[in-house]
Amino acid sequence: MNAHTKTMNAVRFYGQHDIRLDQIPIPPIQPGHVKIAPKFCGICGSDLHEYLGGANLIPKEGCPHPITGETLPLTLGHEFSGIVEEVGHGVDHVRPGDRVCVQPTIYDGSCRACRRGLVNCCDKNGFVGLSGWGGGLSEHMVVPASCVKPLPDNISLEVGALIEPLAVGWHAVDISPYKKGDAVLVLGGGPIGLAVVQALVGRGCDNIIVSEVSRRRREFATQFGAHHVIDPVNVKTAGGFVAEVERLTGGEGADVGFDAAGVQPAVDTAFQAIKARGTLVNIAVWEKRATLNMNDVVFRERGYMGVATYALGDFEAVIQAISSGSMNPQGMITKKIKLDQVAEEGFKTLIDDKENHVKILVDVGAGI
Amino acid sequence: MNAHTKTMNAVRFYGQHDIRLDQIPIPPIQPGHVKIAPKFCGICGSDLHEYLGGANLIPKEGCPHPITGETLPLTLGHEFSGIVEEVGHGVDHVRPGDRVCVQPTIYDGSCRACRRGLVNCCDKNGFVGLSGWGGGLSEHMVVPASCVKPLPDNISLEVGALIEPLAVGWHAVDISPYKKGDAVLVLGGGPIGLAVVQALVGRGCDNIIVSEVSRRRREFATQFGAHHVIDPVNVKTAGGFVAEVERLTGGEGADVGFDAAGVQPAVDTAFQAIKARGTLVNIAVWEKRATLNMNDVVFRERGYMGVATYALGDFEAVIQAISSGSMNPQGMITKKIKLDQVAEEGFKTLIDDKENHVKILVDVGAGI
Repeated sequence: MNAHTKTMNAVRFYGQHDIRLDQIPIPPIQPGHVKIAPKFCGICGSDLHEYLGGANLIPKEGCPHPITGETLPLTLGHEFSGIVEEVGHGVDHVRPGDRVCVQPTIYDGSCRACRRGLVNCCDKNGFVGLSGWGGGLSEHMVVPASCVKPLPDNISLEVGALIEPLAVGWHAVDISPYKKGDAVLVLGGGPIGLAVVQALVGRGCDNIIVSEVSRRRREFATQFGAHHVIDPVNVKTAGGFVAEVERLTGGEGADVGFDAAGVQPAVDTAFQAIKARGTLVNIAVWEKRATLNMNDVVFRERGYMGVATYALGDFEAVIQAISSGSMNPQGMITKKIKLDQVAEEGFKTLIDDKENHVKILVDVGAGI
Repeated sequence: MNAHTKTMNAVRFYGQHDIRLDQIPIPPIQPGHVKIAPKFCGICGSDLHEYLGGANLIPKEGCPHPITGETLPLTLGHEFSGIVEEVGHGVDHVRPGDRVCVQPTIYDGSCRACRRGLVNCCDKNGFVGLSGWGGGLSEHMVVPASCVKPLPDNISLEVGALIEPLAVGWHAVDISPYKKGDAVLVLGGGPIGLAVVQALVGRGCDNIIVSEVSRRRREFATQFGAHHVIDPVNVKTAGGFVAEVERLTGGEGADVGFDAAGVQPAVDTAFQAIKARGTLVNIAVWEKRATLNMNDVVFRERGYMGVATYALGDFEAVIQAISSGSMNPQGMITKKIKLDQVAEEGFKTLIDDKENHVKILVDVGAGI
């Protein structure tokens, strides 16, 4: 770095419980890339996983990410909107001044999964804001043009920062066996659970049951369209959680479950609450192995499937759903903070007061 | 039992390591039922599970099966053929002297799964030969007419005893995501693994890879149509088992896996050997919980599904496949014994010399 290099503020991850507001060089524009000034950036459960128990996804020293070549410290932030500042040679789908959000998927494009179009399953899969290429928690960043999705005029920059988590829920519903008429059980009423609820509402699902321990989050679930909410640790129905789901599904059990919590006992009871040949879709990140009572899986021919983030086209589909009014996620934003408050106000609030919050946005554009 | 009651030989299960050849009353015919003299009866992995670690499925004293009302000691044998001796009032699809096999599914017909036609997922599911209503390891038995499937003239009574395990493999392939052109990995080359191989061959699958530790069973797999066999504990390819499956699938990995072994380390490597969005189908019976490395499930969007025995129509489909010549399972029979040799010769051979055997048939008709 020489005396002429301009610097910027960036929130970087150094390791477990170690996030710092650093001054780092502003990245230069490159051909085929877009330089963006992030405006709003959400703090994600994956960020918390890294903070509390990481580095997990974030590449450690000596193990650079195979595509970015970077290791920690790395800039955080993969749920964000911003303003285009500059476009590199050959970029014509956005212009300086455009309002955009970023699909943070990093993929090599040539692996066996990428060749099938499953870039989210890339053998070298990574994420802007976790694997390198900067992130939304900085004042400037540069990404390949294909990551950059223009926002229609009727979607605010705040809501633009919600498109990434909404795309996770959208994608999960999209590749799940859910079909019109199905009763659905959603485990967890955090941002991803609520994203699933909104995706299901958008598809006309008329029996969405959300299981969530926090009263406030159950209220959010109802607000976003859940037809029933269950406090799994305080079920009044005789027979407990499974009997309650049966009661709410005419005795049949749920057709599909979405696990946005990743808690072992919840998985066990969810399998029992899903009907024969039904499927539990796992969206949660697990820090340890899941264990399955195989009798519940085998004797009812139930399925379990993993879904990972979002595929190509999911961001566009969510943008269209919001723009057309079929999804209205603004209410997910429960707090806004500035860049210098990320560690103290952002992470600690989500850890200590998780149950009263859905999405905390960092107002990057407001400075520090 | 009075002095006039006629008795018969029956092999009955009393508990772990306790199987006895008993003299018990011959069951009377009933309306809507068929009385059968079993001729050949296979010994199944489920029987071994009961013998080694049971009672598991077999109802213990104080816990009668909800449909049969019976508890141990119970007559064993659920893979069998026989001759119709007598038909009850209202039975017209078979007559005395007919050669038949028996679909042993016991179901109540009114539960939520049965109402959807999924009788194998019945909430009260049971099996002739495990849950009551006698079994194939006796000289006479009586079952509801719907269980009784006539054998065409070109299917021998010996092969008739193989239809039950073949139906398990047939059903697993039937409800799996397998489609023409897929590469398939089969874990385990025992009777069920070989049944899966035969069902796949019958559907024109042109890349069947069987993983099996026993050399003899790998030879059987090849004989029944597997295109490749792998000894999972002695893989020469650098990179081991996963790399070997990749090599045999043009670098892609398998589309579908069938687990007929239920061994934890095999499940772990199988997931890695299955391509993104592929599915591992569990047919195995587990005595403990399976544990999943969720990163392998989630980041490649893989699926795991349980299948249970067979549905309505599967026996007929297998009978048709054998009768038409598209399946030729005779070679699965590796030993024949008499009724009084079941415990010593049958179970002990399958336990001690498992790797040299596929299916041991009891020649019930030969007496003791």
